[in-house]
Amino acid sequence: MSTEESFDSAVRKNVHYIELLKSGKLKESNAKAYFKSAIDDNFPTGVHELMFVPTIEGQGNEEQKKKWLKISRNFDIIGCYAQTELGHGTFIRGLETIATYDPSTEEFVMNSPTLTSMKWWPGSVGHTATHAIVVARLITKGKDEGIHLFIVQIRSLEDHNPLPGIKVGDIGPKFGYFGTDNGFLHMTNVRIPRDHMLMKYAQVSRDGTYSKPPAEADKISYAVMVYVRALIVDHSAETLARAITIAIRYSVVRRQTQNRPGEPETQVLDYQTQQFKLFPLLASAYAIKFAGHYMTKLYTEVTEEISEGKLRSLPELHATSAGLKAFCTELCCSGIELCRLSCGGHGYSAASGLPQLYADYSSSQTYEGENTVMLLQTARYIFKVCKQNMPQAQLPSNVAYLAADYPKYKESPVSDPKHFNDPHILLEAYRQRVIRLVAVALERYSKSIATGLDSVAAWNNSSVDWTMAARAHCHYLVLKAFHSSIDAAKVCEANFNIMRVLCCLFGLHGIIQYSGEFCLDGYMNSEQIEMAKNQLYFLLKEVRYEAVPLVDAFDIHDDILNSSLGRYDGDVYRHLYEWALRAPRNKKEVHDNYEKYLKPLLKNTKSKL
Amino acid sequence: MSTEESFDSAVRKNVHYIELLKSGKLKESNAKAYFKSAIDDNFPTGVHELMFVPTIEGQGNEEQKKKWLKISRNFDIIGCYAQTELGHGTFIRGLETIATYDPSTEEFVMNSPTLTSMKWWPGSVGHTATHAIVVARLITKGKDEGIHLFIVQIRSLEDHNPLPGIKVGDIGPKFGYFGTDNGFLHMTNVRIPRDHMLMKYAQVSRDGTYSKPPAEADKISYAVMVYVRALIVDHSAETLARAITIAIRYSVVRRQTQNRPGEPETQVLDYQTQQFKLFPLLASAYAIKFAGHYMTKLYTEVTEEISEGKLRSLPELHATSAGLKAFCTELCCSGIELCRLSCGGHGYSAASGLPQLYADYSSSQTYEGENTVMLLQTARYIFKVCKQNMPQAQLPSNVAYLAADYPKYKESPVSDPKHFNDPHILLEAYRQRVIRLVAVALERYSKSIATGLDSVAAWNNSSVDWTMAARAHCHYLVLKAFHSSIDAAKVCEANFNIMRVLCCLFGLHGIIQYSGEFCLDGYMNSEQIEMAKNQLYFLLKEVRYEAVPLVDAFDIHDDILNSSLGRYDGDVYRHLYEWALRAPRNKKEVHDNYEKYLKPLLKNTKSKL
Repeated sequence: MSTEESFDSAVRKNVHYIELLKSGKLKESNAKAYFKSAIDDNFPTGVHELMFVPTIEGQGNEEQKKKWLKISRNFDIIGCYAQTELGHGTFIRGLETIATYDPSTEEFVMNSPTLTSMKWWPGSVGHTATHAIVVARLITKGKDEGIHLFIVQIRSLEDHNPLPGIKVGDIGPKFGYFGTDNGFLHMTNVRIPRDHMLMKYAQVSRDGTYSKPPAEADKISYAVMVYVRALIVDHSAETLARAITIAIRYSVVRRQTQNRPGEPETQVLDYQTQQFKLFPLLASAYAIKFAGHYMTKLYTEVTEEISEGKLRSLPELHATSAGLKAFCTELCCSGIELCRLSCGGHGYSAASGLPQLYADYSSSQTYEGENTVMLLQTARYIFKVCKQNMPQAQLPSNVAYLAADYPKYKESPVSDPKHFNDPHILLEAYRQRVIRLVAVALERYSKSIATGLDSVAAWNNSSVDWTMAARAHCHYLVLKAFHSSIDAAKVCEANFNIMRVLCCLFGLHGIIQYSGEFCLDGYMNSEQIEMAKNQLYFLLKEVRYEAVPLVDAFDIHDDILNSSLGRYDGDVYRHLYEWALRAPRNKKEVHDNYEKYLKPLLKNTKSKL
Repeated sequence: MSTEESFDSAVRKNVHYIELLKSGKLKESNAKAYFKSAIDDNFPTGVHELMFVPTIEGQGNEEQKKKWLKISRNFDIIGCYAQTELGHGTFIRGLETIATYDPSTEEFVMNSPTLTSMKWWPGSVGHTATHAIVVARLITKGKDEGIHLFIVQIRSLEDHNPLPGIKVGDIGPKFGYFGTDNGFLHMTNVRIPRDHMLMKYAQVSRDGTYSKPPAEADKISYAVMVYVRALIVDHSAETLARAITIAIRYSVVRRQTQNRPGEPETQVLDYQTQQFKLFPLLASAYAIKFAGHYMTKLYTEVTEEISEGKLRSLPELHATSAGLKAFCTELCCSGIELCRLSCGGHGYSAASGLPQLYADYSSSQTYEGENTVMLLQTARYIFKVCKQNMPQAQLPSNVAYLAADYPKYKESPVSDPKHFNDPHILLEAYRQRVIRLVAVALERYSKSIATGLDSVAAWNNSSVDWTMAARAHCHYLVLKAFHSSIDAAKVCEANFNIMRVLCCLFGLHGIIQYSGEFCLDGYMNSEQIEMAKNQLYFLLKEVRYEAVPLVDAFDIHDDILNSSLGRYDGDVYRHLYEWALRAPRNKKEVHDNYEKYLKPLLKNTKSKL
């Protein structure tokens, strides 16, 4: 399908999905999720369900919820969430869109005062949405009160035309996500009633008097973001599972090089280099899955605490979700590409399913918080924790090991590759790695301060080190989640074993990948790194004959996998051929390009031969 | 453009290019290359010029050259090179296509005996080419004589219809390269005259008697491959230069976060994290450029030697070209993606030019030798060199440092970050890294042999280590080429300085990225790694205000760059907007999807409000 055919198809399926919801045929959230992934995850009203409705639930007052929620949940209107602008992304305070309160009519006047203030990127704003939650600076009584949320109708409910003063459209082709109309929104003196500002926390009265939100409101508004990031972690586990299913199944079908006379060519999964690419990714898919479970659990616990008025754990929740979002999407995206490359030439064919998976999913490294910014937010939290110099007992469990009194072991106790079979040895190594990376970053920060730089410049000077520390912390959290989950699961012995193997494989691969960081300050030496490598190679062999069952266990239906290479039946080559025969370019045996361009070029050839 | 519009456009421009060639308006190879990159590198007759014609030049006898070269060079026929098959890639001996000699008619009978034997992937075979060089097993007098080359006409010169017994078509959509019809070719009893086998080295006489090629013919046929790989290295330098030009120019336009009250938001290029992503890639673009020069020089020298009958340097040339192809394409591809991600959300827009650049170019990691296979070929050469135990003086200069008598320094002499300003210190560190990685790989190989494994299994057991050693060797060669080139250039002092900074930056970044490998066997310790990091951070600042001039120096015209973000004039936002307005999806203010799908959904909304 062309991008425009994809858009048509996405909206058609989208409306079909909504009809099923309305008819009550799709109820459970699992069924909804499965249905969506079966027909394609990216369709326009994703943002409506994921952000428009939850924002009204979270930020609207009772009247507003009454007014908007029923019709929104019923898809009588289609909402989008318009935050980012052409010139402004993650830095919310820099947004330029303005909502000026006019007490004479009790309306807000919405304006996009500059080119760079145009809303840019919001999903479904281009051609689908009828309404937008617009993030804008509130001006009342001549004063800029900062960022607030406003519901703006952008298209007519009669004929879908943009309303007066509204200019909307699609931002144009992109890498993937063809099914969603990411768009722009420009407003000129668009008037909306006063009660279209979401007023649960901050209010503007009829005469324009502004009431500040309570101090904790800002923090609570984190919660929706955190929820979305937890979903992203889950989603990256599913996505990597798809990619690794394709790559591992194909690697047992594909054969390459007759290594010994009389033998068939070798299955590519038997090559150590192929195993070294794929099995750590298989382990990562499981690891991220468990990290997702952990993230959801943490989210549930903390939101329960919030509902009881306790906000103590919010910074921890926020830092964890930001970092895990970055870590897991980065791992997933690089993993999809490695899977694609491991399929050789056929991985480059759209028939493999991998190019589209990557093109779509790689956006996750940027949306909902650009990954480097996310890591720096986690780092900022670590920085604060460490500056507090608290004892272990007083810190949240995730960061307890960064406490002043946590032992900084001089060196790793490993003296034999088999010692790495113990996840506790691995977990301790990961903790020590973070402790040392944090020390390096702190030192670079302090030295910068000592030379007279301000805190902004000192932070910038040490920020690469901080991202390394934050990434290492998240790496540890994922390994920990993996280990805790299999420890808690108490499944049958055989399953437990292969899961423990994967858990260790995940940990060992990280040690090889970041070996320099594990050697920092002499915690590990190069002999121990070699032992880790030995053990990793040993585990690759352990996984070899479990690899196909382990991807089958993800239970991804061929219709969802959408890959000739990853088919459950392994009949790869026949389906590559049948798929090629259906290509639009093969409709005619002689392509139109011949008549148009080649024939004049070749017209005298016959006579020359 | 849709993929089909891209194909139409590519063939149209392709034929225009050929007309210019024929008219004599495009003569010089630089002008040709520039023209091609201006209109888009990927068009169908690329393979004709790059492989079809050179293969006839290299493998045809005098009569064959007389018969085919003139009409080929004049594009009276369009040729492709059909080697890979549906089930067979890099392992040439595994190809299944058969050419059976029939002495009764003095013809070869070409057959694709199985599904997996179908030719698959060759460029332009789908709809453009009239002829193919087919790589097939020769059978004569009942004996399989192995792989040989045959010229097969596949389409009629009257009407472009596939000839009897020929089934051709496109293999279907792929990640990128929409302008080329990569295709399949299936043959059933296709008869070609005896003199269509390329017979410079091996011959089949009228009665079917086979004459073997001379022993060195095989080696000489490497030379064409090497030539193509040298071009790929050059091309990856150009491609990375495009990506980094876009990312660096955009990073001075884009501002993010007001860090101090009253100040404007910070240019993103001022963030250390952004510099750490981009400046090593800027250095890499230059490094690969010099590696390309070096590769071309080596190729020229060795082919001159070959013409004098000396084949001694061929293995060295082959190993170097294989490894550099893998190293440089990998660096370029991951670099493009990092550039894209460093542009935040707008990097995901097709307007940035980066998604298409990546989708097209990432194929380079697979074509002309899959990268892991390439690294293993380089490794195999290193393995042989080391097993010979020769003194330094007797080895080719590239691998002289792997000699038995080359000093294995116990530890790095660095005791101050500034010591890393000396490229010789860096080069020695890179050599010591390889020496140690090779020792690790050799030891794993030997231990495997000692446990009773055969050489195939032992090689496989140590192959991950071998790829690491080969990658490190190539890394060293690239750094060496960078250093030698700027050393030899003797340009003015200021230019020399910034080039030396980039050279050191390239070397230091590798030390940070692979720090564990530099610590192997205690050559560097973690304090020295930290010094390298200090020095790297210092150099990032040195490069900051030279970065824009350094990408301007690549002198890539806006028309070629094809990026709203990378425009020379920096007027990014206006052009993003104008580009969006021209998107096909914005032809109508109300998209057709409204009438088709949304209107029925929203038809009763008005009454509910």
